[in-house]
Amino acid sequence: MTSSLVRVGIIGTGNIGADHVDRVAHQVSGARVEALFDVMTDRVSALADSVGARSLPSARAVIEDDAVDAIIVASPAEFHAELSLFSIAAGKPVLCEKPLAPTNDECQIVVDAELEKGRRFVSLGFMRRYDAAYRHLREHLDGDKIGIPLHLRCVHRNPDVPPTFTSEMSMTDAVIHEIDCARWLLGEEISSIRVISGKSTPDAPHGLRDPQLVIMESTSGVLVSVEIFVAAQFGYDVRCEVSGSRGFSSMGYQDLGDYVTVAGRHSAFSPNWRVRFGEAYRLEIQDWVNGLAVGEIRGANAFDGLAATTVAQAGVQAVRTGDIVPVHLPTRPSLYD
Amino acid sequence: MTSSLVRVGIIGTGNIGADHVDRVAHQVSGARVEALFDVMTDRVSALADSVGARSLPSARAVIEDDAVDAIIVASPAEFHAELSLFSIAAGKPVLCEKPLAPTNDECQIVVDAELEKGRRFVSLGFMRRYDAAYRHLREHLDGDKIGIPLHLRCVHRNPDVPPTFTSEMSMTDAVIHEIDCARWLLGEEISSIRVISGKSTPDAPHGLRDPQLVIMESTSGVLVSVEIFVAAQFGYDVRCEVSGSRGFSSMGYQDLGDYVTVAGRHSAFSPNWRVRFGEAYRLEIQDWVNGLAVGEIRGANAFDGLAATTVAQAGVQAVRTGDIVPVHLPTRPSLYD
Amino acid sequence: MTSSLVRVGIIGTGNIGADHVDRVAHQVSGARVEALFDVMTDRVSALADSVGARSLPSARAVIEDDAVDAIIVASPAEFHAELSLFSIAAGKPVLCEKPLAPTNDECQIVVDAELEKGRRFVSLGFMRRYDAAYRHLREHLDGDKIGIPLHLRCVHRNPDVPPTFTSEMSMTDAVIHEIDCARWLLGEEISSIRVISGKSTPDAPHGLRDPQLVIMESTSGVLVSVEIFVAAQFGYDVRCEVSGSRGFSSMGYQDLGDYVTVAGRHSAFSPNWRVRFGEAYRLEIQDWVNGLAVGEIRGANAFDGLAATTVAQAGVQAVRTGDIVPVHLPTRPSLYD
Amino acid sequence: MTSSLVRVGIIGTGNIGADHVDRVAHQVSGARVEALFDVMTDRVSALADSVGARSLPSARAVIEDDAVDAIIVASPAEFHAELSLFSIAAGKPVLCEKPLAPTNDECQIVVDAELEKGRRFVSLGFMRRYDAAYRHLREHLDGDKIGIPLHLRCVHRNPDVPPTFTSEMSMTDAVIHEIDCARWLLGEEISSIRVISGKSTPDAPHGLRDPQLVIMESTSGVLVSVEIFVAAQFGYDVRCEVSGSRGFSSMGYQDLGDYVTVAGRHSAFSPNWRVRFGEAYRLEIQDWVNGLAVGEIRGANAFDGLAATTVAQAGVQAVRTGDIVPVHLPTRPSLYD
Repeated sequence: MTSSLVRVGIIGTGNIGADHVDRVAHQVSGARVEALFDVMTDRVSALADSVGARSLPSARAVIEDDAVDAIIVASPAEFHAELSLFSIAAGKPVLCEKPLAPTNDECQIVVDAELEKGRRFVSLGFMRRYDAAYRHLREHLDGDKIGIPLHLRCVHRNPDVPPTFTSEMSMTDAVIHEIDCARWLLGEEISSIRVISGKSTPDAPHGLRDPQLVIMESTSGVLVSVEIFVAAQFGYDVRCEVSGSRGFSSMGYQDLGDYVTVAGRHSAFSPNWRVRFGEAYRLEIQDWVNGLAVGEIRGANAFDGLAATTVAQAGVQAVRTGDIVPVHLPTRPSLYD
Repeated sequence: MTSSLVRVGIIGTGNIGADHVDRVAHQVSGARVEALFDVMTDRVSALADSVGARSLPSARAVIEDDAVDAIIVASPAEFHAELSLFSIAAGKPVLCEKPLAPTNDECQIVVDAELEKGRRFVSLGFMRRYDAAYRHLREHLDGDKIGIPLHLRCVHRNPDVPPTFTSEMSMTDAVIHEIDCARWLLGEEISSIRVISGKSTPDAPHGLRDPQLVIMESTSGVLVSVEIFVAAQFGYDVRCEVSGSRGFSSMGYQDLGDYVTVAGRHSAFSPNWRVRFGEAYRLEIQDWVNGLAVGEIRGANAFDGLAATTVAQAGVQAVRTGDIVPVHLPTRPSLYD
Repeated sequence: MTSSLVRVGIIGTGNIGADHVDRVAHQVSGARVEALFDVMTDRVSALADSVGARSLPSARAVIEDDAVDAIIVASPAEFHAELSLFSIAAGKPVLCEKPLAPTNDECQIVVDAELEKGRRFVSLGFMRRYDAAYRHLREHLDGDKIGIPLHLRCVHRNPDVPPTFTSEMSMTDAVIHEIDCARWLLGEEISSIRVISGKSTPDAPHGLRDPQLVIMESTSGVLVSVEIFVAAQFGYDVRCEVSGSRGFSSMGYQDLGDYVTVAGRHSAFSPNWRVRFGEAYRLEIQDWVNGLAVGEIRGANAFDGLAATTVAQAGVQAVRTGDIVPVHLPTRPSLYD
Repeated sequence: MTSSLVRVGIIGTGNIGADHVDRVAHQVSGARVEALFDVMTDRVSALADSVGARSLPSARAVIEDDAVDAIIVASPAEFHAELSLFSIAAGKPVLCEKPLAPTNDECQIVVDAELEKGRRFVSLGFMRRYDAAYRHLREHLDGDKIGIPLHLRCVHRNPDVPPTFTSEMSMTDAVIHEIDCARWLLGEEISSIRVISGKSTPDAPHGLRDPQLVIMESTSGVLVSVEIFVAAQFGYDVRCEVSGSRGFSSMGYQDLGDYVTVAGRHSAFSPNWRVRFGEAYRLEIQDWVNGLAVGEIRGANAFDGLAATTVAQAGVQAVRTGDIVPVHLPTRPSLYD
């Protein structure tokens, strides 16, 4: 019955959490915002009122509320695993923003909790899997248009970062998206990672190496190279090109329409990830809700989250040591096939 | 309150009507499908079941049903005016597919009915106003990026049409979209239209002149030229370029991602309007629903419908006579300012 | 023998003539500048010195000079026919800038002079036939990639014109290029022309209708539409798209390389015809010289010149009357097959 | 005097040498082919006849011929240094195809010979410096459009290679172009190189690692990454993007004009370097000849040749060892400033 809406509880109403509130309330079909929690209690109660939801006193209160059918976790990363575990314990589906957890061990605990229950609860917010351009790339790969994939050339540029941002955070907060994309496009795991840096931009926070060049290898030997550049100033720019044995497929930058004057041809550039991936986020939430309506848990799963964190953590070690760091990932349980 | 869904009754469940059912049921926030009517009773009852709606025995039954808050009319064009009038009489908002009616007189009756009620009920389904590319064009015009508009160069190509399609239908069924776009982009009315044809494609149905070249002029003297080509075979291709006194702004064709092999660079082309404007339709319905939630009637209005039909009918006359046909439009009532 | 250079006499050393001097002297193989004439005697003698050529006292002196093998005419248009006739009389090949002459009668006299001699001497400077983008269009047509041509959609925009420029000159000085391109691409003649104008740009000289929309029809019924806009300010912009029964082929605007900053994506636009068609001019001159070396007269011929002027003059009448003006062209003599 | 042609002797008339013969004979101004030598004597005498040149019995005979003013060396790479030295000894300018020599020591001997003479004779055939797209990149860098350069992302793909091609030859024959481009764009030297390989294409000759990923660093710390892929099948594809502290500038792939049919949008891809860089080669030769006419030696110099070979040889070692190999380059003599 489409008339019974999925009642969603949302934990964390910062940038991305507030966007999710808006999406569930105003942009997707089949769901409504039932309850919210954020430590910023003033902010959250006004937001709750605006969408006809209740503001509850704790994350746990949201998860365990009888009127809440499913959870979205958009709190800081250190709470992701714990809140996912509470959701699993409560038997409720949870869409958790990436990463699943900052450490491999915490991710493993979430995976184990699902394995014990014998079914999936967790969806990971790797929204790029819903982006039209990435989907075209994957269609070209799956349709064998360009032969065997041999090299993924990626760019991930962000206009700026807070002063506290570090070279390691480039791996855990940004490159983690390329890690998931590579796994998703190639259908195999990353087996090693190294990180190379040269001269840094004068606009980077003190101590941040930026840009860095990340080179990963997949289990079958496909190279994945990433220019990660988080203080690139000009805008948000995510690209990927798959070089195959018979051709290549390219995902260019997003053009917002051009015009020409005496000053030349001009087009606005995507200013940030909210513009670039707004539609992907909407499709992600819509697909998640549609899945819940038919009893399915869709999107990237907890094992994807474990894998991404494991590679990102190897990347952190690579940043620190300059070495090629092998990635040790447990065998994927059949629950995630 | 987001929790009270707009209950939508949908009349006509052919191609576009069925898409609207899917959109209201599965793609937009804040609405549900409450009731359906179609003369194809078998088709409609299965569809109604699939979205938890009721199949009613007549269009009028849908409009007057107590549980229906708002109407979508997607029936054949000859019923649009009558069903809009029933909706107005019932005091219910109605989103009517274009055209408002095939004749100017019928359109005028709908406008008069709204004027008598002293408020708007009708939204016209000119979905291109919600298309991102058209919106960029309009931003460039409104932002005075390219000076005063002087010429709109439009292309409207469609892969194929039924054998019964006529040169006049190219005006009423296809060019009507360019008519609305020109009015919306320029913020003024069309004052004349002429239609020129040359050699026709061997793939056109017997008697159809295709392509045709349509030249309109706006009240301030802006030229609007349209290549209308409805049996173009290769795909669906809608473009517009505004040539201004200081520059131009272009809306190119929709690219679905390219790849390169030994056979060259290749990209899929938009096959039909459902792919090209699917997202515009979704945004149109979502905006309509969002408006209803706050007591507003959004989108193109009944006077826009009257104007578009008036110009399209002048175009029909231009096809038949080869003359420059002036467009006689009544003054726009202040209700539509 | 490549070591014997074609000794070229150049008449008229204004903008385009001076470019030709540079091309013959420094950019093409197998030719040298032997003699020059221009009414601006100071300018021409310095130019002659710079390329090791002689400055002669009259155009006729250049044509009849024993050391001159071939002539380039880049004088004002009213002298083109006379100088071409002198060249024919002297038995020397002549590359004449377009138009062959401002009137049909003068063009006919040149054609008749060649017919009397029984061979070609005149090449017309329709340089677009040497442009790579136009050549690709023609390859797509000749290779039957897009079916039967049905509509050519052309744009011809120029940044600005002198204050004395008139609506008629838009036909004779600018649209004449589209006339030749249409004939060359389609392999058939233009049979009628009409010109439509609306609001003019405030930047146009007094009395100039600009932009104008030109609609031509070919003998088989192909439509050719041209936006001619000579005071377009932003730059020089020539485009053509051929709409065929099975697809289309597009020649877009010339991009001089782009870069992206916080202000958006930016690329320089072609500022004028010298940049846009510089390489086409070079290839034209090189091909002309290469032809002379093997006894061939290459490029557009005198009949092409007659046809272009005839259509342009019909366009002038169309500007004045607003009518559809039929084009009356004599049968093409077999010399020009 | 433009009438005195530079008389060119060309040594080696294989693929690229034959192209140079055609260019000097038929495509550039101010030069003629005077003499040729190739070990394939049959081939060379027919070619000589076709351009009015003499076929001489040895390379040395060409260099020392009194009627030869300047030399082009297009023989196999192992003869480049020796023939350059002969030219220097004969006091004649020489345009030598890259590399200057396969080993650093040989390159150094050529540099030393010029230093002893106290002036330049050698121009190196790094034709990309004359390519319009590379020139735009450099203008954007020199004009400080995009801030400080931080990362050059390069692609160099070639359709196929002979069965004898090795992973080391990818450095000496292909990446050497990227080495020169990086030096020329950045205005500084390369200080280290490493080479990473993963899975190879099944279409590569036995033992060839292909693609390989090359990472270089410049003296100031700019990273240069290159995907080198010599058996890429689909075509010839050279790209470069400079990522700067304030923006980026991109050189995309060469498009040969597109058309759209029911099969989608299609454009031919550059099949090989002769198409992609044909115009750059012509401009290189023309500039070289123009320079000779005014007593200048233009283009990349012998020290550029030494630097490129030195980095490429470090790349060969990097292929073999997997190490980061430092580049040891002598100080640039002031002759080359």
